[in-house]
Amino acid sequence: MSIVVVGSVAFDSLETPAGKRERALGGSANYFSICASMLTKVQLCAVVGDDFPAGHTAWLGQRGIDTSGLLSKTGKTFHWSGRYGTDLNEAQTLGTDLNVFADFDPVLPSSYADARTVFLANIDPDLQRKVLAQVTKPRLIGMDSMNLWINIKRDSLLQTIAMVDILFLNETESRLLSGEHNIVRAARGIQKMSKRALTVVIKRGEYGALLFRPESRIVAVPAWAVEEVFDPTGAGDTFAGGCMGALDRTLEQGRALDDGAWRRAMMTGTVMASFVVEDFGFDRMLKLEPAEVRERGEALRQMTTVEALIDI
Amino acid sequence: MSIVVVGSVAFDSLETPAGKRERALGGSANYFSICASMLTKVQLCAVVGDDFPAGHTAWLGQRGIDTSGLLSKTGKTFHWSGRYGTDLNEAQTLGTDLNVFADFDPVLPSSYADARTVFLANIDPDLQRKVLAQVTKPRLIGMDSMNLWINIKRDSLLQTIAMVDILFLNETESRLLSGEHNIVRAARGIQKMSKRALTVVIKRGEYGALLFRPESRIVAVPAWAVEEVFDPTGAGDTFAGGCMGALDRTLEQGRALDDGAWRRAMMTGTVMASFVVEDFGFDRMLKLEPAEVRERGEALRQMTTVEALIDI
Repeated sequence: MSIVVVGSVAFDSLETPAGKRERALGGSANYFSICASMLTKVQLCAVVGDDFPAGHTAWLGQRGIDTSGLLSKTGKTFHWSGRYGTDLNEAQTLGTDLNVFADFDPVLPSSYADARTVFLANIDPDLQRKVLAQVTKPRLIGMDSMNLWINIKRDSLLQTIAMVDILFLNETESRLLSGEHNIVRAARGIQKMSKRALTVVIKRGEYGALLFRPESRIVAVPAWAVEEVFDPTGAGDTFAGGCMGALDRTLEQGRALDDGAWRRAMMTGTVMASFVVEDFGFDRMLKLEPAEVRERGEALRQMTTVEALIDI
Repeated sequence: MSIVVVGSVAFDSLETPAGKRERALGGSANYFSICASMLTKVQLCAVVGDDFPAGHTAWLGQRGIDTSGLLSKTGKTFHWSGRYGTDLNEAQTLGTDLNVFADFDPVLPSSYADARTVFLANIDPDLQRKVLAQVTKPRLIGMDSMNLWINIKRDSLLQTIAMVDILFLNETESRLLSGEHNIVRAARGIQKMSKRALTVVIKRGEYGALLFRPESRIVAVPAWAVEEVFDPTGAGDTFAGGCMGALDRTLEQGRALDDGAWRRAMMTGTVMASFVVEDFGFDRMLKLEPAEVRERGEALRQMTTVEALIDI
């Protein structure tokens, strides 16, 4: 029992105010897996071309990530190029060469079918549902999406949303999907689009994240204040990996997904994301120790804790 | 013993997505006083023209605000016109008629001289220092400023900053003043501009606020998630009023300004600001009850509290 994650594994060529990298390893499912594998067992499904370094696949395996669903096709691996200006919250896409990802047909190995948790990273919502059809009885399903699918495949996207438990969106996406500018109305509006109890997580980059559980009060977690953001690429997928990883770990321990578990998941995602931006790509994750995560988690808790009541 | 506040009392003509108002009562010192008067004794210094309604001055008096420093001059009251688009974080100024405010010469009544706390709202930094020369031994001095003074009176502004304990700035102002884009570096850089121990509070609008005390870890308070922002005018001054009011109240009680007191002050400012934006001008403050403030403070605390440690 594990988290199955389906999304992209890619090369990223990117430039940030701190420097540039050509063809660094990236992709949503890659970032998600690398993070979540620190918390739980991960089964990865993605597609790469024959130019993909076998060494990376082997390294993912060494982290305990099941790569039997990492399909290799003849052709080139998905290649994204982008640039970040001083405002690190938003990337400017310079090029998107989908390559073998254009015909991605996610077929899960049979060993993935009994996954306890599923994360549908940002891919075509038709494919997201195709993945769901291949898992028998997941306890928890999370998903991400992007402006493109909201604009060109809205109906399909809504069908997928109606099947999941947790939707991760950034502020722009939540406004586009809901038609509401106010973020509370946007999130509550999106929850009403599903007949299922839908949790909406709004990612706000350097401002943190908001959690909207059904019929619950909002939870706000500010981002950890990072003094030098090297590269924000993968921060959102790493956040989701920490969040979903913590939730799956809670299920693994036979514990309920109660209010405390959700808050812990938000903190875990926030802390994991704060590390990944400290260096290029996922370099920071290579040497990240559980003790560092616990320590920053405690520091983040102290940053946001107010014991005293307002005296008025 | 009290808070002396010096700043503007004005007419605001404004338009927000929720509606418009002509010549509503506004001004930084007005918003600050109305808020802080719920927490402590306030002594107001500002200038108005002979078109200013005596009824408002009388009403401020009824709230316990000392208006003996509210000077009346021949001429018109300061009049600001502005518009907010869908992005309520930033106002577009349509007109600034300084009128009698152009020659504002803050002369404090002698009864203000022994103020325990001083708040210098956004006025010319030369005048801010002139005010400080008229108070004998304040325990705590806070100040606000704006882009204009950073651009045209930087040296004077730095002289004022060197004399205060707390500086309130928004993100844009802190970047402009420090030359640093990263908000942590900006705040820490500004602290180094003063030889005194300087606390910097960064206001981030709907994203909340950050507290940088000298040699202390950062405190982050997210904004209360307001579903309908009617009018953000005065939110920053109301935030400062709640924050400074809570600190002055702590001093009044003979208690130390320790970590808990600062966190309580940030919460108080945040909650007060969340109320003022719920209606036009300061209409919401007219009927605001202490019990409502306490209740929302507790809800905000719950919104941000994470009991559980990260499990990794």
